[in-house]
Amino acid sequence: MGNSETPVVGIAMGSDSDWPTMRAAAEMLDRFGVPYEARVLSAHRTPRAMLDWGQAAAGRGIRVVIAGAGGAAHLPGMLAAATTLPVIGVPVVLKTLDGLDSLLSIVQMPTGVPVATVAIGNAANAGLLAVRILGASDPRLAAALADYAQDLERQVAAKDAALGAAG
Amino acid sequence: MGNSETPVVGIAMGSDSDWPTMRAAAEMLDRFGVPYEARVLSAHRTPRAMLDWGQAAAGRGIRVVIAGAGGAAHLPGMLAAATTLPVIGVPVVLKTLDGLDSLLSIVQMPTGVPVATVAIGNAANAGLLAVRILGASDPRLAAALADYAQDLERQVAAKDAALGAAG
Amino acid sequence: MGNSETPVVGIAMGSDSDWPTMRAAAEMLDRFGVPYEARVLSAHRTPRAMLDWGQAAAGRGIRVVIAGAGGAAHLPGMLAAATTLPVIGVPVVLKTLDGLDSLLSIVQMPTGVPVATVAIGNAANAGLLAVRILGASDPRLAAALADYAQDLERQVAAKDAALGAAG
Amino acid sequence: MGNSETPVVGIAMGSDSDWPTMRAAAEMLDRFGVPYEARVLSAHRTPRAMLDWGQAAAGRGIRVVIAGAGGAAHLPGMLAAATTLPVIGVPVVLKTLDGLDSLLSIVQMPTGVPVATVAIGNAANAGLLAVRILGASDPRLAAALADYAQDLERQVAAKDAALGAAG
Amino acid sequence: MGNSETPVVGIAMGSDSDWPTMRAAAEMLDRFGVPYEARVLSAHRTPRAMLDWGQAAAGRGIRVVIAGAGGAAHLPGMLAAATTLPVIGVPVVLKTLDGLDSLLSIVQMPTGVPVATVAIGNAANAGLLAVRILGASDPRLAAALADYAQDLERQVAAKDAALGAAG
Amino acid sequence: MGNSETPVVGIAMGSDSDWPTMRAAAEMLDRFGVPYEARVLSAHRTPRAMLDWGQAAAGRGIRVVIAGAGGAAHLPGMLAAATTLPVIGVPVVLKTLDGLDSLLSIVQMPTGVPVATVAIGNAANAGLLAVRILGASDPRLAAALADYAQDLERQVAAKDAALGAAG
Amino acid sequence: MGNSETPVVGIAMGSDSDWPTMRAAAEMLDRFGVPYEARVLSAHRTPRAMLDWGQAAAGRGIRVVIAGAGGAAHLPGMLAAATTLPVIGVPVVLKTLDGLDSLLSIVQMPTGVPVATVAIGNAANAGLLAVRILGASDPRLAAALADYAQDLERQVAAKDAALGAAG
Amino acid sequence: MGNSETPVVGIAMGSDSDWPTMRAAAEMLDRFGVPYEARVLSAHRTPRAMLDWGQAAAGRGIRVVIAGAGGAAHLPGMLAAATTLPVIGVPVVLKTLDGLDSLLSIVQMPTGVPVATVAIGNAANAGLLAVRILGASDPRLAAALADYAQDLERQVAAKDAALGAAG
Repeated sequence: MGNSETPVVGIAMGSDSDWPTMRAAAEMLDRFGVPYEARVLSAHRTPRAMLDWGQAAAGRGIRVVIAGAGGAAHLPGMLAAATTLPVIGVPVVLKTLDGLDSLLSIVQMPTGVPVATVAIGNAANAGLLAVRILGASDPRLAAALADYAQDLERQVAAKDAALGAAG
Repeated sequence: MGNSETPVVGIAMGSDSDWPTMRAAAEMLDRFGVPYEARVLSAHRTPRAMLDWGQAAAGRGIRVVIAGAGGAAHLPGMLAAATTLPVIGVPVVLKTLDGLDSLLSIVQMPTGVPVATVAIGNAANAGLLAVRILGASDPRLAAALADYAQDLERQVAAKDAALGAAG
Repeated sequence: MGNSETPVVGIAMGSDSDWPTMRAAAEMLDRFGVPYEARVLSAHRTPRAMLDWGQAAAGRGIRVVIAGAGGAAHLPGMLAAATTLPVIGVPVVLKTLDGLDSLLSIVQMPTGVPVATVAIGNAANAGLLAVRILGASDPRLAAALADYAQDLERQVAAKDAALGAAG
Repeated sequence: MGNSETPVVGIAMGSDSDWPTMRAAAEMLDRFGVPYEARVLSAHRTPRAMLDWGQAAAGRGIRVVIAGAGGAAHLPGMLAAATTLPVIGVPVVLKTLDGLDSLLSIVQMPTGVPVATVAIGNAANAGLLAVRILGASDPRLAAALADYAQDLERQVAAKDAALGAAG
Repeated sequence: MGNSETPVVGIAMGSDSDWPTMRAAAEMLDRFGVPYEARVLSAHRTPRAMLDWGQAAAGRGIRVVIAGAGGAAHLPGMLAAATTLPVIGVPVVLKTLDGLDSLLSIVQMPTGVPVATVAIGNAANAGLLAVRILGASDPRLAAALADYAQDLERQVAAKDAALGAAG
Repeated sequence: MGNSETPVVGIAMGSDSDWPTMRAAAEMLDRFGVPYEARVLSAHRTPRAMLDWGQAAAGRGIRVVIAGAGGAAHLPGMLAAATTLPVIGVPVVLKTLDGLDSLLSIVQMPTGVPVATVAIGNAANAGLLAVRILGASDPRLAAALADYAQDLERQVAAKDAALGAAG
Repeated sequence: MGNSETPVVGIAMGSDSDWPTMRAAAEMLDRFGVPYEARVLSAHRTPRAMLDWGQAAAGRGIRVVIAGAGGAAHLPGMLAAATTLPVIGVPVVLKTLDGLDSLLSIVQMPTGVPVATVAIGNAANAGLLAVRILGASDPRLAAALADYAQDLERQVAAKDAALGAAG
Repeated sequence: MGNSETPVVGIAMGSDSDWPTMRAAAEMLDRFGVPYEARVLSAHRTPRAMLDWGQAAAGRGIRVVIAGAGGAAHLPGMLAAATTLPVIGVPVVLKTLDGLDSLLSIVQMPTGVPVATVAIGNAANAGLLAVRILGASDPRLAAALADYAQDLERQVAAKDAALGAAG
């Protein structure tokens, strides 16, 4: 999964069962025209392939990594160990505990190896955070982010007006 | 608080009582020679000054914002609302609940306004994540991060040798 | 949304998706004949419009603010920062964590900016608390609250009788 | 405990061991010149005396009740059952669970009997919320609250300046 | 609800919505032939009637009280304040938090006023605990409890055999 | 540990390290003149001796069992499996988790084998609950419990007067 | 339930209602050709039969015990008390608390009596852990485990390819 | 750290700061005369060295791996990914959250890669579990475990006698 240009964001997940959650990251990147690749890579089942991908990412042009995982969620942290790129972690919800285990397994990283953690199940925000990171050195993306923020403002105003009209 | 060059990272906290936690972010930035400014800005006590600072940050050259807060910790999220720069949140531990309230108040942001959350009380990792973000488009910083990772490796090897020698 | 008289209670929510929860506040105010207005205002998407509304509320005759939000729920606390009116917070339940994140994000406010927090998802009680606040200086509402309390008593007695009759 | 004028706020606690927490409510009321009385009244040890006090409060001029309790914290809710005045609950921290049991026992009230809950252990905010409630119909208190908010603003600005000077 | 003899167990609940949970207590008492009465009595909506019933219970022949409640669950503790009979608390599950709030609100009673708390939602065990308490001074009930325990043993053995046969 | 008469309450704990918590149960029984024995019996280290003691308890005149345990706290539930007497469980606090593990391990018993659970670390209430259970069929103890309740009332009144005098 | 050879793994559960969870352990053992027996044995309802089975297990050729239980889950720990074989605990999810009570009741064992705890509801991993334990002294099983790990690797690679093809 | 014979147990930890917790595992192995090696190996700082050690372990004669880690504790799970030996995980307590994050990060492993998790901070039990695993195929160790269990029994009996003598 990905799009045609050289990807600058890598989206990794431990299983295709995480894709229904993680695709929102891809959709957000599509919205901003940011090329990405999406990969199934498992910290626990393919540890060396996962490290290899992480280690090679920067050299291949990747500038931000997004990783989603659930339960004892080690993928984001292990990718952060393999690269010095910024890694964004998405806590995926499994059958029990509502993603609390995923959140703590991702966010509570030791000093030296941070993971930029977003809300439980919120891969859209992971995509958006990647855009913000890229936008910090890309005026075109910064402008697109400003447009996006104005869109959100307009949506709130429209909902406010609709609620008022319903009164 | 800050250093002499034009700051590229802004460190915000709601009170000087957060500084003992947040100074570790500043020290990490110092280590990498990244200029920053540190500010006391409160979402609850100076909401407009806080929004003004957040909104002006990018124009003043800031490229990453770090914000620490505890309890009903709104500062990181509100700064993320004021700017499209990447915002890193540090959950500060208060007297009760061990920072769990701070963590959830910071990380569980709605779609559209992400906060890159690090471990409870781990401002050093916030500083390091800022360097990773800057390093994604700055080869000098990327190289420094690689050195830093090798230092960590060497420290582990040294501790391993010391533990062996103690056997 | 609102009713025809000059509103004395303002009901704010971050999105119209909170309305199914928050409408119970409006219904309770309707029951007591308390005029209100309901607004979609987002701490994260429309921060300045939200602060403006909060700051102007008292001058427009609003005497109590009710705000509902979920997840990293900043709206009640930010409105409490914008006004010195009493602000009542309603923790809205999102997809995960059963509203525990919402509760902690709303109730754990720092000294100086309290939010009067009610039970998770219980906007009816937010409406009723607003009536109690208004009733503290309005004998007509105080009498209506006494009637309401007697109604509750009668309902319990009726249910007790019905359970007895089923024996 | 109290001050000389006819009290308009009643502060109740289940034991004098709650006073070290609850006195901050009294101090905040003193700051705003709001007369109050402080009482030891136990939901569990003196249930009828507690209900009697709650029921008589409004008739004696009390307009807001503040109640602190820890563990299976029933005092705020039972006072809210005894009166139609607004009741503010303060979750007191006991030896274990960091006040989480107190918080849930106070905030999760059923429809019909709300308790305005503040942060764990934050009786100062309970006092301040009482002032906000009274201030909603008292221009002198509203003005004092605005002054207080400006004081908070100034304190933040002073801390910000001090942090800058330390740089 | 109840049965024809003078009741020795009183089952109280705050609303008939608790009856689907609490009826299992009644069914257990029926199984052991222990007469009981079931009442809707609310700590929050009918506090004095609730205290009156609790205070009169022993004089009317009640020897054990069972009380179920959810959320900020005050009924068991308040009945324990009204009587010196043993009071058994059943944490009822409401819409959120899975009964954790109910459990903590019931079990964390202060010294002097214990509530004998059973598992979340397990009113059958509340009934059985009442029988154990009565059986401590009633050889007939003690013998019935021994029979019941043997029944449980036989059921386990039968399930074990069935699982084996399925192999 | 115990007193001279034939014991009617058995106090069991898994280790003498639980005695600092559990002695409050013994002291409460001493206060009411209820004879007891205190035993170190481990569900995990002496399972058969523990079951033997539990099974023999009723025959030796024991009418209520109190058991304290921490962590994966199995002693109360296993004694409830060995006897049909009422068993009271005391969740003991260990080094981590503040007794939450102990509480859940004790209270969440399956249907058929209830444990009457009291507050975390509150062995005094376990002793008092045992007295309430015995008092349900012993007018002398019932009268003593009424006196005790009046003592508690007087203490609250005295503390209330002292707080008032401090004003 | 079991298979024809002399069992080397014993699977115990407190009720046949745990079988839908626990069968995954049996299926994993089947996959590796490890003979086992599955038994319904209750810590609370058949404590002596449970201890007898545990104590006799090693003599009958059992080398690893797997036990599943929910709520106040005592079966794994009590079997660990009855035998010196390694005991694997599976926290079974009941109606509330998502298995958190089961997990803590199983994992938090005191020094001297460990239980090897696996993820909530993950009996497949309990079966696999048993195979790992047996494989530590059985080259044939060790080789089969290596094959199994390669299978997992291949599955990840296939999913990765499929995701890529979907792009 | 280790002892002179070829090690059969490998003890791994991410930092020497975990040694005060983990040494109890070594001491337990010493007690049973089981040779081991103790290593500082970090999943996050030396991921490849960690995988290499795990992968080579079985070939070097290691038959059980013990790994301790805190916070986002990935070491046990990553070692379980590198080897098919049984891996025992010890949740180490860090400054906040009492080890709950460590526990969930270790125990909640996905199907295919189990970690045998012991109680928070209880490395002694990790050592003992390793002995149980080895003892399943080593009669000498099995006999030593039986002796150890009898020692525990005797200690309980001695404590019981001492408590009785204190009566």
